[in-house]
Amino acid sequence: MSASTLDIKNYMEERRALIESALPQALQPVCRGAEQLFAAMEYSLMAGGKRLRPLLFLAALESIAAQDESIRAEDYLPFACGIEMIHTYSLIHDDLPAMDDDDLRRGRPSCHKAFDEATAILAGDGLLTHSFAVMLSTPAAAERLLPAIRLVAEKAGIYGMVSGQVIDVAAEGQPLTLQQLQYIHSCKTGALLQAAVVAGGWLAGADAAMRDALMSYAGSFGLAFQIIDDILDIVADEQTLGKPIGSDAANNKTTYVTLLGLDGARAAAAAALADAQAALQPLGTRGELLAALADACLGAQLAACR
Amino acid sequence: MSASTLDIKNYMEERRALIESALPQALQPVCRGAEQLFAAMEYSLMAGGKRLRPLLFLAALESIAAQDESIRAEDYLPFACGIEMIHTYSLIHDDLPAMDDDDLRRGRPSCHKAFDEATAILAGDGLLTHSFAVMLSTPAAAERLLPAIRLVAEKAGIYGMVSGQVIDVAAEGQPLTLQQLQYIHSCKTGALLQAAVVAGGWLAGADAAMRDALMSYAGSFGLAFQIIDDILDIVADEQTLGKPIGSDAANNKTTYVTLLGLDGARAAAAAALADAQAALQPLGTRGELLAALADACLGAQLAACR
Repeated sequence: MSASTLDIKNYMEERRALIESALPQALQPVCRGAEQLFAAMEYSLMAGGKRLRPLLFLAALESIAAQDESIRAEDYLPFACGIEMIHTYSLIHDDLPAMDDDDLRRGRPSCHKAFDEATAILAGDGLLTHSFAVMLSTPAAAERLLPAIRLVAEKAGIYGMVSGQVIDVAAEGQPLTLQQLQYIHSCKTGALLQAAVVAGGWLAGADAAMRDALMSYAGSFGLAFQIIDDILDIVADEQTLGKPIGSDAANNKTTYVTLLGLDGARAAAAAALADAQAALQPLGTRGELLAALADACLGAQLAACR
Repeated sequence: MSASTLDIKNYMEERRALIESALPQALQPVCRGAEQLFAAMEYSLMAGGKRLRPLLFLAALESIAAQDESIRAEDYLPFACGIEMIHTYSLIHDDLPAMDDDDLRRGRPSCHKAFDEATAILAGDGLLTHSFAVMLSTPAAAERLLPAIRLVAEKAGIYGMVSGQVIDVAAEGQPLTLQQLQYIHSCKTGALLQAAVVAGGWLAGADAAMRDALMSYAGSFGLAFQIIDDILDIVADEQTLGKPIGSDAANNKTTYVTLLGLDGARAAAAAALADAQAALQPLGTRGELLAALADACLGAQLAACR
């Protein structure tokens, strides 16, 4: 293991620990009498997961901040937690019977199974609404905070994630072309990853060219991430994945593997990863951390896909 | 009809017209392929209604702005529309089968009946998320805009509306005390009304004392509003109400009428209206518009309850 591999693993562990300890603080107690709501929000928010979005957010923030010591990851944890809350709400609502009807999430009963459907809908609504209160509490300059949160609202909403879910539900059971599949994922998964990365850069003062580079990096990162997810659905074991393997195939879902085959999907993931790295070029040395992060998150998983 | 009654009716008509024309603009087209989402959001958002929350928001803004001509209602329509989007999303989710299971809303099929359940959940999510993008686009000074939106997120979320709905669903079929009923409504309905009024004042530069007065006004306004709603469920006809009359009684719901009787409920509504007016005292002449609005919205309805 090279020194830089060790460094990025340390970085990821340290930042994940920061995020894990900040999340319960960000989830302040709700109104008296609504303890069930708090329990359901906490159940889903603290269920583990890779914390990929807040991690990417912090990495982009610190990359663009570079030598600017006034920008410390610790101060931006509210924003990072807000992004994770949005991701969590989307999982809760996606799992609902009217949507993907999934009983399991990360190896545990999904929110509407552990509680009930009404509570799960409201826990999602609560996390989504509270995410904005939390992001707005970030002690950052207003002229950076406002556009960063606005970008998150756009990419999490009708210009991204919510639209992606609508298109995905409508396409269920229908065969898709590669272009259609890629479009759905770019909305459903890619948009929030992009918002996390670009918002992090923006808060650290990234100019328009830097934000373009970050947007492109995150787009390719998201694509590689999704292709690898599809591959893992075939090759991983149930325990590693935290959900039944082969569930995509059982649902007759079009995936990168059904369209490209396993080898083709591996090649496409590798190409998307290379695109992500190439997108960082305009950032010079400021792109190094994000490049290492892509390698650690995606390259390592891709290697495990063989 | 006195001159001031005419004035407030004109004011309300003009502001409602502004809001009605701004709403479709605020609801920009969604991603390609998600037209169904847009249709469902538009169906519910443009279904009419009193536009009470954005109206109160604008009235508070203009009241506090007083002679400050740099503050024009037209510039603050994005914020007003955002508040109405939050209200609309809450109605869509409340009507879902897992919640109140209402087939009708404003005399038309509710969103999940006109479309389907998945689309209704996502239309709600889309409206809620987009409301923040829209509010954040308001051309206001950042040091006023940030706390105003944060207040909305808190009052619409776990410190208000979402918690209120959880408590309400949990209390279904159980008898409530007057105190419990009032608490549920203060979270479920009162909190967003308060956020609308106080945010409007805040954006116009209201200081802490003014914001306290506005918060108290809106709290009493919301209470009177809810009591009158309960009375109308008994005395109004179905067409006026846009939903089946007597539905509260049919659901064995505790209401102000079941707890206080019709006359008692009328007296309580009148007392809450008087409290709303009294709360405006610290604002001096700046409170006149809001006082007239309470009379026009609540006093007139209360008179019709006889």
